[in-house]
Amino acid sequence: MSNFQHLPSVHRLQGLAARPIDLRAALTPERIAHFSAKALGFTLLFGTERIDEDILSALLHLASESRGLEKMAAMQSGKVLNRIEGFPSENRAVLHTAMRDVFSNRQSSLEASHAASAAEAELHKLEQFLTDIEGRFTDVIQIGIGGSDLGPKALCLALEAFYLPNRRMHFISNVDPDDAAAVLEKVDLGKTLVIVVSKSGTTLETLTNEELVRTQMKKAGHEPKNHFVAVTGKDSPMDDPKRYLASFYIWDFVGGRYSATSMVGAVILGFAIGFRGLKEILRGAHEMDLHALEAQAHSNLPLLSALLGIWNRNFLKLPTVAIIPYSQALHRFPAHLQQLDMESNGKRIDKLGKPVDFSTGPVIWGEPGTNGQHSFYQLIHQGTDVVPLEFIGLKKNQYTQDLEIQHTTSQEKLLSNLFAQSIALAIGQESENPNQTFPGNRPNRILLADRLDPHTLGALLAFYEHKVAFQGFIWNINSFDQEGVQLGKKLAGEVLELFKNKRTKGRGEFKLGEAYLRFL
Amino acid sequence: MSNFQHLPSVHRLQGLAARPIDLRAALTPERIAHFSAKALGFTLLFGTERIDEDILSALLHLASESRGLEKMAAMQSGKVLNRIEGFPSENRAVLHTAMRDVFSNRQSSLEASHAASAAEAELHKLEQFLTDIEGRFTDVIQIGIGGSDLGPKALCLALEAFYLPNRRMHFISNVDPDDAAAVLEKVDLGKTLVIVVSKSGTTLETLTNEELVRTQMKKAGHEPKNHFVAVTGKDSPMDDPKRYLASFYIWDFVGGRYSATSMVGAVILGFAIGFRGLKEILRGAHEMDLHALEAQAHSNLPLLSALLGIWNRNFLKLPTVAIIPYSQALHRFPAHLQQLDMESNGKRIDKLGKPVDFSTGPVIWGEPGTNGQHSFYQLIHQGTDVVPLEFIGLKKNQYTQDLEIQHTTSQEKLLSNLFAQSIALAIGQESENPNQTFPGNRPNRILLADRLDPHTLGALLAFYEHKVAFQGFIWNINSFDQEGVQLGKKLAGEVLELFKNKRTKGRGEFKLGEAYLRFL
Repeated sequence: MSNFQHLPSVHRLQGLAARPIDLRAALTPERIAHFSAKALGFTLLFGTERIDEDILSALLHLASESRGLEKMAAMQSGKVLNRIEGFPSENRAVLHTAMRDVFSNRQSSLEASHAASAAEAELHKLEQFLTDIEGRFTDVIQIGIGGSDLGPKALCLALEAFYLPNRRMHFISNVDPDDAAAVLEKVDLGKTLVIVVSKSGTTLETLTNEELVRTQMKKAGHEPKNHFVAVTGKDSPMDDPKRYLASFYIWDFVGGRYSATSMVGAVILGFAIGFRGLKEILRGAHEMDLHALEAQAHSNLPLLSALLGIWNRNFLKLPTVAIIPYSQALHRFPAHLQQLDMESNGKRIDKLGKPVDFSTGPVIWGEPGTNGQHSFYQLIHQGTDVVPLEFIGLKKNQYTQDLEIQHTTSQEKLLSNLFAQSIALAIGQESENPNQTFPGNRPNRILLADRLDPHTLGALLAFYEHKVAFQGFIWNINSFDQEGVQLGKKLAGEVLELFKNKRTKGRGEFKLGEAYLRFL
Repeated sequence: MSNFQHLPSVHRLQGLAARPIDLRAALTPERIAHFSAKALGFTLLFGTERIDEDILSALLHLASESRGLEKMAAMQSGKVLNRIEGFPSENRAVLHTAMRDVFSNRQSSLEASHAASAAEAELHKLEQFLTDIEGRFTDVIQIGIGGSDLGPKALCLALEAFYLPNRRMHFISNVDPDDAAAVLEKVDLGKTLVIVVSKSGTTLETLTNEELVRTQMKKAGHEPKNHFVAVTGKDSPMDDPKRYLASFYIWDFVGGRYSATSMVGAVILGFAIGFRGLKEILRGAHEMDLHALEAQAHSNLPLLSALLGIWNRNFLKLPTVAIIPYSQALHRFPAHLQQLDMESNGKRIDKLGKPVDFSTGPVIWGEPGTNGQHSFYQLIHQGTDVVPLEFIGLKKNQYTQDLEIQHTTSQEKLLSNLFAQSIALAIGQESENPNQTFPGNRPNRILLADRLDPHTLGALLAFYEHKVAFQGFIWNINSFDQEGVQLGKKLAGEVLELFKNKRTKGRGEFKLGEAYLRFL
């Protein structure tokens, strides 16, 4: 495994970065048509990135030198990729793709096919469960945090147009007690199903919120056991039929941020849009898994997107990425991608435990368009820093309601804005008024899909999972652990002891923590 | 007006930046207590920034050399600050502070006191209006985008705990037709008040959404005139008593992103929490206005925060800022601050129209804690880039519901996490396992307040407005225009023509736009 910085194509790309193409002159209709790739109903339009044929070819070499596609195959077949050589680490396979490998052409490796069988068994349990509870609940509260919250929530919000009648989804994540209180004000607990999600069964925020909701449930005269469902590891403290109506299982080979298509997301999504809709999400994701695995580099959408991201990050030295869906339904999708990307690739050591001497994962942020245009686009167009953008566009809207006003529909207005921004950022504008000068050359690309239905959403989710994984493969870092969250957790425990001691008359030892408590 | 780069303190700070303090050794309880400032019930804790007495003193010099406090006084007294010398520009006063200068000790300048009187007149109208409609409506839909959406929405969501009984607030902003459709599915239009907000009365997204909702209102058998309220400039196309139940006025001396305390936010907030609650928001903001105006630099909270931001941005060269409220109620507050800051200070020319040779506004992003800890904190702790953090903490929660679990309340768990993160980021951790090594020295500060009630929220809003304004004053840029949004708007119009032409058989001329349309 060679260090990223020593790959011949990296050297070549460093040379090419000295003269990135000037889009102000170069952007033509031919270029837009040429730098595009299509698969599975998606089109990636990247003529507005600062690349040319030489750069693209060097990037494709980079993919091959860093063995991106081989590592994707190793991942999907269940090799132990979540590992740091020579040091204690999680040492696990990475098999979120098995969660949707429940159609034809199953992966042939033993590990992957076992995982897929286990996933299939949970899906059967879920299908039966959804039938059994039919008519009993109108509302669901999902209690979870991080990957047990952001992904499922982003997907639910994206599919509100597909909810079964009279169903409402709620999420409680924050240990802030106001989060639970605000949700509890809105629901009739007698008709509410509560899904508690924690792989270990020990997550502080989740257990605390579960207790809060159980207490309210009892106060309202309902037996929690008839309302609470556990999504957890087999034999975890939460895998307890005395306390839960049902348990659905997740495994340590599916990381939290990659778990939206496991039972972590499946239970609530199945309730919200029905089991058939859920299967469509899985089918879309599975098709993208196969595409990431099988498509050659130059037509592999998530790999291309990963390479363009690496060009912007490591060679044009741009430290952030804005992900902007021109779709209000996707308004929380960037928050999910923020976790997915930053927790996966915000790493400072490589897979051999050596500190890296290059930049890894960028800061990921974003809000939907056109809203962003009326907010932070001022900086995007005229700020002193360059922010690369990843746009997501949909050809059709979800609801049938649309209205022609002045000869165009809202959907056409939305797409006009998307295309115009892509062009404006690339070509800029000269002006005698310095305040109306736009420097241009601001790289961006568009991922265009047909309509945001369950199938497309599943594929979109998997597209980003694989983009992130490919970047980690190319950088040769471990995208599947999260040791960086441990120190804060440890110190939080120490501060919490100080609060506890105030009640139990114990003695605190954490002087830095005490210094803060004096301000309360 | 001297260029930022030529100020003596900037030169001095560049020297000091060569040896920023090493927090891993320096952070002590005494340091935490020492680098703190209190005012109006807020405490700013900045011992975890990479500063020492010399640096703080040079920063305070910078404030004085760049005449930060004089410019704040000029702004609040109504001088024409929204202007570029020697070029066509908006040439306007900047008087959002007048919107809440409706208590004692009014600003004495003619411009500011006229603006305050006008604001007071609108508040009287609103008070009467809220009495007149009492009992008629349960739901409000606010239609607006950018500043007419983000600020009011962030404030409403922050105050759900204070809503009058049986009131629900909704927002439609995006031209995406699914945005309106999703809201319309949730309300009983017969009991819905619709607030349409556009200063010019010509915002494309807003007028389109207004038409969509009017059409639905008529279909449902209700007369729109009895349900629609306009918030707009006097004599704008929307200032029309034939079409609206009432008009409330806004003026061009209040910029969109600074308009949350004008009628843009006041109408919906007054409906949601009552007129008295609204006045408390204004009172909190007004008190912070006076503090920003009158407090000396070393104890002026927004100015201190501005200076620490400039230290991180211009001297430690950090390109982003994460704003993390440890409060779920503030979950959309970072989105408002993102607009406020990036639209104000994402500028490439100074007030003389000269391109700047230093970095202006950073990328602003954020999500609430503790949620972020389970998401992007991996990168914050162990990524290759350093991200400065601005934490917001509250001593008490909003709802009275809280539960002691294992001897501590949820609020105590929340605060323990906040303090622990601040410390962990500063001191890091050494380890023989490179994956458990935390480099530390990651700058952050905490703004701590008592309880998120209307008064505190008003002050918090104004704190950030003034922090952003102070940074603009120090950089000598115009924080009050937004020319950078124009080019995209213009090109969107050209793409829209292409769609229109498909229906009207006209001919398109925008070849780059056509290249995109071929992919539809």
